Order: sequence, then structure tokens, then C-alpha cells
Amino acid sequence: MQITSPSIPSLVSSSDHLLEALAAHYMAMPPVAAMQPSVLDWQDGCLRMHAPLDANVNDKGCAFGGSLSSLMTIAGWGLAFLKLAEAGLEADIYVADSRVRYLKPVYEDLLVEVRLDTAGENAADAIDLPGALRGKGRASVRMEARTLLADGGVAAVLVGRYVAIARD
Amino acid sequence: MQITSPSIPSLVSSSDHLLEALAAHYMAMPPVAAMQPSVLDWQDGCLRMHAPLDANVNDKGCAFGGSLSSLMTIAGWGLAFLKLAEAGLEADIYVADSRVRYLKPVYEDLLVEVRLDTAGENAADAIDLPGALRGKGRASVRMEARTLLADGGVAAVLVGRYVAIARD
Repeated sequence: MQITSPSIPSLVSSSDHLLEALAAHYMAMPPVAAMQPSVLDWQDGCLRMHAPLDANVNDKGCAFGGSLSSLMTIAGWGLAFLKLAEAGLEADIYVADSRVRYLKPVYEDLLVEVRLDTAGENAADAIDLPGALRGKGRASVRMEARTLLADGGVAAVLVGRYVAIARD
Repeated sequence: MQITSPSIPSLVSSSDHLLEALAAHYMAMPPVAAMQPSVLDWQDGCLRMHAPLDANVNDKGCAFGGSLSSLMTIAGWGLAFLKLAEAGLEADIYVADSRVRYLKPVYEDLLVEVRLDTAGENAADAIDLPGALRGKGRASVRMEARTLLADGGVAAVLVGRYVAIARD
């Protein structure tokens, strides 16, 4: 999956501007806009996103699994974008592969959080994504995204591998 | 991911009725309807589906990866539904986990085909899904779905495990 990076706002000093750019980027894609996702916050390396159940419901009254998967996937993409944009870098970011486990049905609004995997495969790139991109022109990172339930449970887990390629 | 089976039409003698029931079922789910999927055909154990690029495009002008993943996922679900409905069986069908590899961007309408994996894990259940469901009350099968390009290339591959549980 390829998603072009949105233009990095000139006022990169504020992460609010990056979150706004990311949200605008999401809404520019029809199948993403249909999910009505919103960016909640980004702190301590964790990006959190929300989507209303109504726009993502199946006939059973719970969340469509494809929406869970898509929301977790774009959250991972967004985290890579934010990490790079914060450092003033623009890149083409792709999800190369992903694995999703569906654990519990979701009968409420969707809440997703995603973090870089800084301990597993490609840990060095994840620990310093901007540095890896500057040094090699490309970086590969793993992410883990989770769909959380209000009761503290985990409804779904996505582990994805993303590739960032520096723009000339 | 849980999707309730649509009611099996009374005229199960015609696979056209099953395909119509499946298509109606898809369109009843808002996030699926937004993708505008259509069921092309089902023959020789292969279900083929289509979705227009326009409804599934990202800002780069190619297909959103989440749409590829979702279309392949619901195609797998549909294949399990058809196999069981053809035998007069109703079941709750879930996708338990899936792995997607994104290989090439898709700059055209989405074309997906899916088949049961009758050689790998849970091969016995896949070879005779209705028999497995009748005998054990549940069955677990693996599917492989592919997003195909007009030039013969493969843009994405999903391997998913689906569970069917007989209704009382």
C-alpha cells in the first residue's frame, strides 16, 4: 500500500500542525474518509486514533473487521509520517505486509493505538527512524497496533512492516 | 471479524440466488458498501470480486491498501458462505487472522479472486467444509486471496484463516 506523504506544514515546531496535516491527509482518501477516522493524540511514541462505530458497523452491530484492519494500518502509516515530519523529513511510506489477529468483537466506537517495535526485527531503524532514513535513504520498521475496548480488553492486533524511502 | 450469514434463499438450487444473497449481504454493511464491491462469479471453487478504483483510491491515484485487504477479506468470507450455503448449511463465519503482502500498486479497478487452501493446514476441513461442519459443529479453513492486475501481475496476497460454527 502506498500513501503519499502530505506536505509538511511550515510550522513544524508544533505537533498540532503535524496532526492536522495527517488528519487532512486521511480525509482526502475516499475509502478512508468513509471510516470517519480522527487523530486523537500522539505522545510518548504512541499515536491514538478513533472512528465511530456507525460508519464501520457490520450487519451484526459490531465493527467490520476490514475497518479494524484499515484503521490500524493507517495509524501505523501516520506514526511513521509523524516521526519523520517531526525531524523535518519527507518520505514515501509504504506498508509492505501486515498480520492481523481478530480477538473480540467491537460493539463500541473504534479506538486504536500504535507504537513502533523497538525491540524486534529492524530495531535500529525503529529506534532512530529519521537517522536511518538520513543514513541509508530508506528505513524499514515494524509497528504494533491494537484496537482497544473500553473495558481494557484488546479486540484486534496488527503487526505491520512499513518502509520509508527518502525523497530526492 | 464476525459477519452474520445472510439468510439462505429458498431456491438454493441456483447458485445465482446465493450470489445475489451474498451481494445483498455485503451492501448491508456501510463500510463495505462504501467500497462498492460486486460479486463477479463463482466457479471451479474460485470466487471473483470487483470494486471500482474511484471508490477505493488514495491520494496517489492508486488503490488504498485497506481496500485491497478488506476486499480480499470479504471475498474469503463469501467463499465460505457459498460453500456452506450450497450444501444447505448456515453458519457463523469469522475471520480469525490474516496476513497480507502488498506487492504492487493498483492503478485500475480492483479484481480479487479467492480459493480455499486444500493442501496446507486444516486441509481436511477445506476439502470438505460442509462435511467438517456437520461432523464437528465447527470447521477451520485457510484461504488464499489475490488482487490481480490486468497485465497478469499479482498486486497483493492475503492468506486468511476462517472459522465456521454451525448454528443450532
